[in-house]
Amino acid sequence: MADTKIRVTAKSENKTKTVVQTKAFTMILDEPKALGGTNDGANPLEYLLAALSGCLNVVSHMVAKEMAFELRGLEIELEGDLNPAKYMGISDAERTGFKEIRARIKPDADADAVTLERWLKTVESRCPVDDNVVNSTPVKITLA
Amino acid sequence: MADTKIRVTAKSENKTKTVVQTKAFTMILDEPKALGGTNDGANPLEYLLAALSGCLNVVSHMVAKEMAFELRGLEIELEGDLNPAKYMGISDAERTGFKEIRARIKPDADADAVTLERWLKTVESRCPVDDNVVNSTPVKITLA
Repeated sequence: MADTKIRVTAKSENKTKTVVQTKAFTMILDEPKALGGTNDGANPLEYLLAALSGCLNVVSHMVAKEMAFELRGLEIELEGDLNPAKYMGISDAERTGFKEIRARIKPDADADAVTLERWLKTVESRCPVDDNVVNSTPVKITLA
Repeated sequence: MADTKIRVTAKSENKTKTVVQTKAFTMILDEPKALGGTNDGANPLEYLLAALSGCLNVVSHMVAKEMAFELRGLEIELEGDLNPAKYMGISDAERTGFKEIRARIKPDADADAVTLERWLKTVESRCPVDDNVVNSTPVKITLA
Protein backbone atom coordinates (compact mmCIF):
# COMPACT_ATOMS: atom_id res chain seq x y z
CA MET A 1 0.00 0.00 0.00
CA ALA A 2 1.40 3.39 -0.98
CA ASP A 3 2.24 6.06 1.60
CA THR A 4 -0.02 9.08 1.94
CA LYS A 5 1.31 12.60 2.39
CA ILE A 6 -0.54 15.09 4.59
CA ARG A 7 0.43 18.73 4.08
CA VAL A 8 -0.62 22.05 5.60
CA THR A 9 0.75 25.58 5.51
CA ALA A 10 0.79 27.89 8.50
CA LYS A 11 1.19 31.64 8.75
CA SER A 12 1.90 33.59 11.88
CA GLU A 13 -0.58 36.44 12.15
CA ASN A 14 0.94 37.72 15.37
CA LYS A 15 3.05 36.32 18.22
CA THR A 16 0.33 33.92 19.35
CA LYS A 17 -2.09 33.58 16.42
CA THR A 18 -1.45 31.04 13.66
CA VAL A 19 -3.64 30.54 10.61
CA VAL A 20 -3.35 27.08 9.08
CA GLN A 21 -4.56 26.16 5.62
CA THR A 22 -5.34 22.71 4.35
CA LYS A 23 -6.64 22.08 0.83
CA ALA A 24 -10.18 22.74 1.98
CA PHE A 25 -10.13 24.29 5.46
CA THR A 26 -8.70 27.04 7.62
CA MET A 27 -7.77 26.47 11.26
CA ILE A 28 -7.04 29.29 13.70
CA LEU A 29 -4.86 28.76 16.76
CA ASP A 30 -4.23 31.38 19.40
CA GLU A 31 -3.64 31.93 23.11
CA PRO A 32 -6.04 33.60 25.57
CA LYS A 33 -5.54 37.26 26.48
CA ALA A 34 -4.42 36.24 29.96
CA LEU A 35 -1.37 34.60 28.32
CA GLY A 36 -0.64 37.55 26.04
CA GLY A 37 -2.65 36.25 23.10
CA THR A 38 -5.36 37.63 20.88
CA ASN A 39 -7.84 34.87 21.80
CA ASP A 40 -9.00 34.08 18.27
CA GLY A 41 -8.85 30.30 18.56
CA ALA A 42 -8.10 27.27 20.68
CA ASN A 43 -4.47 26.82 21.73
CA PRO A 44 -1.99 24.34 20.20
CA LEU A 45 -2.30 21.83 23.06
CA GLU A 46 -6.09 21.84 22.72
CA TYR A 47 -5.53 21.18 19.01
CA LEU A 48 -3.37 18.20 19.89
CA LEU A 49 -6.11 16.75 22.12
CA ALA A 50 -8.67 17.51 19.38
CA ALA A 51 -6.53 15.63 16.84
CA LEU A 52 -6.47 12.61 19.14
CA SER A 53 -10.23 12.72 19.73
CA GLY A 54 -11.05 12.99 16.03
CA CYS A 55 -8.77 10.10 15.23
CA LEU A 56 -10.27 7.95 17.99
CA ASN A 57 -13.77 8.70 16.67
CA VAL A 58 -13.00 7.61 13.10
CA VAL A 59 -11.16 4.44 14.15
CA SER A 60 -13.82 3.63 16.77
CA HIS A 61 -16.52 3.49 14.14
CA MET A 62 -14.35 1.57 11.68
CA VAL A 63 -13.48 -1.11 14.24
CA ALA A 64 -17.07 -1.35 15.58
CA LYS A 65 -18.23 -2.04 12.03
CA GLU A 66 -15.57 -4.75 11.62
CA MET A 67 -16.65 -6.28 14.94
CA ALA A 68 -20.26 -6.13 13.79
CA PHE A 69 -21.80 -4.06 16.55
CA GLU A 70 -23.58 -0.77 16.16
CA LEU A 71 -21.82 2.27 17.59
CA ARG A 72 -24.56 4.88 17.82
CA GLY A 73 -22.52 7.57 19.50
CA LEU A 74 -19.34 8.43 21.31
CA GLU A 75 -18.21 11.02 23.80
CA ILE A 76 -14.61 11.52 24.84
CA GLU A 77 -13.19 13.58 27.68
CA LEU A 78 -9.52 14.32 27.16
CA GLU A 79 -7.02 15.93 29.46
CA GLY A 80 -3.30 16.25 29.83
CA ASP A 81 -0.91 17.70 32.39
CA LEU A 82 2.17 19.71 31.64
CA ASN A 83 4.59 21.92 33.45
CA PRO A 84 5.16 25.28 31.72
CA ALA A 85 8.66 25.87 33.17
CA LYS A 86 10.71 24.60 30.20
CA TYR A 87 8.37 26.16 27.65
CA MET A 88 8.83 29.51 29.39
CA GLY A 89 12.61 29.10 29.62
CA ILE A 90 12.61 28.96 33.42
CA SER A 91 13.87 25.41 34.02
CA ASP A 92 14.83 22.28 32.08
CA ALA A 93 14.02 19.97 34.99
CA GLU A 94 10.84 18.60 33.43
CA ARG A 95 9.81 17.91 29.84
CA THR A 96 7.93 20.70 28.08
CA GLY A 97 5.03 18.72 26.60
CA PHE A 98 2.21 16.74 28.17
CA LYS A 99 3.57 14.28 30.75
CA GLU A 100 0.49 12.15 30.25
CA ILE A 101 -2.74 12.31 28.29
CA ARG A 102 -5.94 10.67 29.51
CA ALA A 103 -8.91 9.95 27.26
CA ARG A 104 -12.17 8.69 28.76
CA ILE A 105 -14.39 7.19 26.08
CA LYS A 106 -18.12 6.75 26.52
CA PRO A 107 -19.53 4.63 23.71
CA ASP A 108 -23.26 4.31 23.05
CA ALA A 109 -23.36 0.75 21.77
CA ASP A 110 -25.06 -2.60 22.24
CA ALA A 111 -21.96 -4.57 23.12
CA ASP A 112 -20.89 -6.32 26.31
CA ALA A 113 -17.94 -5.24 28.46
CA VAL A 114 -15.56 -7.87 27.05
CA THR A 115 -16.36 -6.85 23.48
CA LEU A 116 -15.89 -3.16 24.31
CA GLU A 117 -12.51 -3.79 25.95
CA ARG A 118 -11.35 -5.71 22.87
CA TRP A 119 -12.72 -2.93 20.66
CA LEU A 120 -10.86 -0.29 22.68
CA LYS A 121 -7.52 -2.14 22.44
CA THR A 122 -7.89 -2.44 18.67
CA VAL A 123 -8.89 1.22 18.29
CA GLU A 124 -5.88 2.28 20.34
CA SER A 125 -3.46 0.22 18.27
CA ARG A 126 -4.75 1.53 14.94
CA CYS A 127 -5.24 5.24 15.68
CA PRO A 128 -2.50 7.21 13.84
CA VAL A 129 -2.51 10.22 16.19
CA ASP A 130 -2.31 7.96 19.25
CA ASP A 131 0.69 6.22 17.66
CA ASN A 132 2.43 9.55 17.02
CA VAL A 133 2.02 10.59 20.64
CA VAL A 134 2.69 7.27 22.35
CA ASN A 135 5.68 6.37 20.19
CA SER A 136 8.61 8.49 19.15
CA THR A 137 8.23 10.23 15.78
CA PRO A 138 11.05 12.15 14.09
CA VAL A 139 10.26 15.82 13.47
CA LYS A 140 12.73 17.50 11.11
CA ILE A 141 12.57 21.26 11.44
CA THR A 142 14.59 23.27 8.96
CA LEU A 143 14.97 26.90 7.94
CA ALA A 144 13.58 27.78 4.53
CA MET B 1 6.15 25.79 39.11
CA ALA B 2 2.73 24.12 39.26
CA ASP B 3 1.47 21.81 36.52
CA THR B 4 -1.22 23.05 34.14
CA LYS B 5 -4.12 20.89 33.04
CA ILE B 6 -5.54 21.19 29.52
CA ARG B 7 -8.97 19.68 29.01
CA VAL B 8 -11.37 19.32 26.08
CA THR B 9 -14.54 17.32 25.44
CA ALA B 10 -15.31 15.66 22.13
CA LYS B 11 -18.57 14.37 20.72
CA SER B 12 -18.96 12.14 17.71
CA GLU B 13 -21.54 13.63 15.38
CA ASN B 14 -21.21 10.79 12.91
CA LYS B 15 -18.64 8.14 11.98
CA THR B 16 -16.11 10.73 10.77
CA LYS B 17 -17.17 14.08 12.28
CA THR B 18 -16.05 15.08 15.75
CA VAL B 19 -17.03 18.29 17.51
CA VAL B 20 -14.55 19.37 20.18
CA GLN B 21 -15.28 21.95 22.87
CA THR B 22 -12.72 23.90 24.85
CA LYS B 23 -13.74 26.51 27.43
CA ALA B 24 -14.01 29.13 24.69
CA PHE B 25 -13.91 27.44 21.28
CA THR B 26 -15.39 24.74 19.09
CA MET B 27 -13.28 22.69 16.71
CA ILE B 28 -14.72 20.49 13.97
CA LEU B 29 -12.82 17.52 12.58
CA ASP B 30 -14.01 15.39 9.70
CA GLU B 31 -12.90 13.36 6.71
CA PRO B 32 -13.46 14.24 3.05
CA LYS B 33 -16.35 12.63 1.15
CA ALA B 34 -13.87 10.55 -0.86
CA LEU B 35 -12.96 8.77 2.41
CA GLY B 36 -16.56 8.31 3.51
CA GLY B 37 -16.74 11.50 5.55
CA THR B 38 -19.08 14.47 5.70
CA ASN B 39 -16.31 16.97 4.90
CA ASP B 40 -17.18 19.51 7.59
CA GLY B 41 -13.63 20.12 8.82
CA ALA B 42 -9.95 19.32 8.53
CA ASN B 43 -8.92 15.77 9.37
CA PRO B 44 -7.23 14.63 12.61
CA LEU B 45 -3.75 14.43 11.05
CA GLU B 46 -4.09 17.96 9.70
CA TYR B 47 -5.06 18.99 13.25
CA LEU B 48 -1.89 17.38 14.56
CA LEU B 49 0.24 19.36 12.07
CA ALA B 50 -1.75 22.51 12.94
CA ALA B 51 -1.04 21.93 16.65
CA LEU B 52 2.68 21.70 15.89
CA SER B 53 2.66 24.85 13.76
CA GLY B 54 0.79 26.91 16.35
CA CYS B 55 3.16 25.78 19.06
CA LEU B 56 6.22 26.60 16.94
CA ASN B 57 4.79 30.08 16.24
CA VAL B 58 4.29 30.95 19.92
CA VAL B 59 7.69 29.61 21.02
CA SER B 60 9.43 31.22 18.01
CA HIS B 61 8.28 34.66 19.07
CA MET B 62 9.07 34.05 22.73
CA VAL B 63 12.62 32.91 21.98
CA ALA B 64 13.25 35.70 19.43
CA LYS B 65 12.29 38.22 22.11
CA GLU B 66 14.69 36.59 24.59
CA MET B 67 17.45 36.66 21.96
CA ALA B 68 16.63 40.31 21.30
CA PHE B 69 15.87 40.21 17.60
CA GLU B 70 12.66 41.21 15.94
CA LEU B 71 10.61 38.43 14.39
CA ARG B 72 8.22 40.21 12.07
CA GLY B 73 6.60 37.16 10.57
CA LEU B 74 6.78 33.43 10.12
CA GLU B 75 5.56 30.92 7.61
CA ILE B 76 5.72 27.17 8.09
CA GLU B 77 5.16 24.38 5.62
CA LEU B 78 4.45 21.09 7.36
CA GLU B 79 4.10 17.62 5.95
CA GLY B 80 4.13 14.06 7.11
CA ASP B 81 4.05 10.64 5.49
CA LEU B 82 2.07 7.70 6.69
CA ASN B 83 0.97 4.35 5.41
CA PRO B 84 -2.78 3.72 5.85
CA ALA B 85 -2.52 -0.09 5.94
CA LYS B 86 -2.54 -0.56 9.74
CA TYR B 87 -5.17 2.14 10.27
CA MET B 88 -7.42 0.32 7.80
CA GLY B 89 -6.78 -3.06 9.37
CA ILE B 90 -5.00 -4.46 6.30
CA SER B 91 -1.48 -5.01 7.67
CA ASP B 92 0.54 -4.43 10.83
CA ALA B 93 3.85 -4.28 8.96
CA GLU B 94 4.26 -0.52 9.37
CA ARG B 95 3.29 1.89 12.13
CA THR B 96 -0.07 3.60 11.75
CA GLY B 97 0.92 7.21 12.44
CA PHE B 98 3.25 9.61 10.65
CA LYS B 99 6.63 7.99 10.02
CA GLU B 100 8.21 11.42 9.90
CA ILE B 101 7.07 15.03 10.09
CA ARG B 102 8.92 17.83 8.29
CA ALA B 103 8.45 21.50 9.14
CA ARG B 104 10.08 24.16 6.97
CA ILE B 105 10.17 27.48 8.79
CA LYS B 106 10.59 30.78 6.97
CA PRO B 107 11.22 33.57 9.47
CA ASP B 108 11.04 37.24 8.51
CA ALA B 109 13.70 38.61 10.85
CA ASP B 110 16.85 40.72 10.97
CA ALA B 111 19.16 38.04 12.29
CA ASP B 112 22.16 36.28 10.77
CA ALA B 113 22.22 32.59 9.88
CA VAL B 114 24.13 31.56 13.03
CA THR B 115 21.64 33.37 15.26
CA LEU B 116 18.69 31.82 13.42
CA GLU B 117 20.12 28.30 13.75
CA ARG B 118 20.59 28.83 17.50
CA TRP B 119 17.08 30.25 17.72
CA LEU B 120 15.64 27.24 15.88
CA LYS B 121 17.37 24.73 18.18
CA THR B 122 15.99 26.53 21.25
CA VAL B 123 12.48 26.75 19.77
CA GLU B 124 12.56 23.03 18.98
CA SER B 125 13.64 22.09 22.50
CA ARG B 126 10.97 24.18 24.20
CA CYS B 127 7.90 23.53 22.01
CA PRO B 128 5.47 21.29 23.97
CA VAL B 129 3.76 19.76 20.92
CA ASP B 130 7.13 18.95 19.31
CA ASP B 131 8.16 17.23 22.57
CA ASN B 132 4.96 15.15 22.60
CA VAL B 133 5.56 13.94 19.06
CA VAL B 134 9.33 13.45 19.16
CA ASN B 135 9.34 11.75 22.56
CA SER B 136 7.12 9.02 23.89
CA THR B 137 4.09 10.22 25.86
CA PRO B 138 1.77 7.88 27.76
CA VAL B 139 -1.85 7.99 26.57
CA LYS B 140 -4.26 6.26 28.96
CA ILE B 141 -7.51 5.43 27.23
CA THR B 142 -10.31 4.08 29.40
CA LEU B 143 -13.99 3.31 29.04
CA ALA B 144 -16.30 5.66 30.94
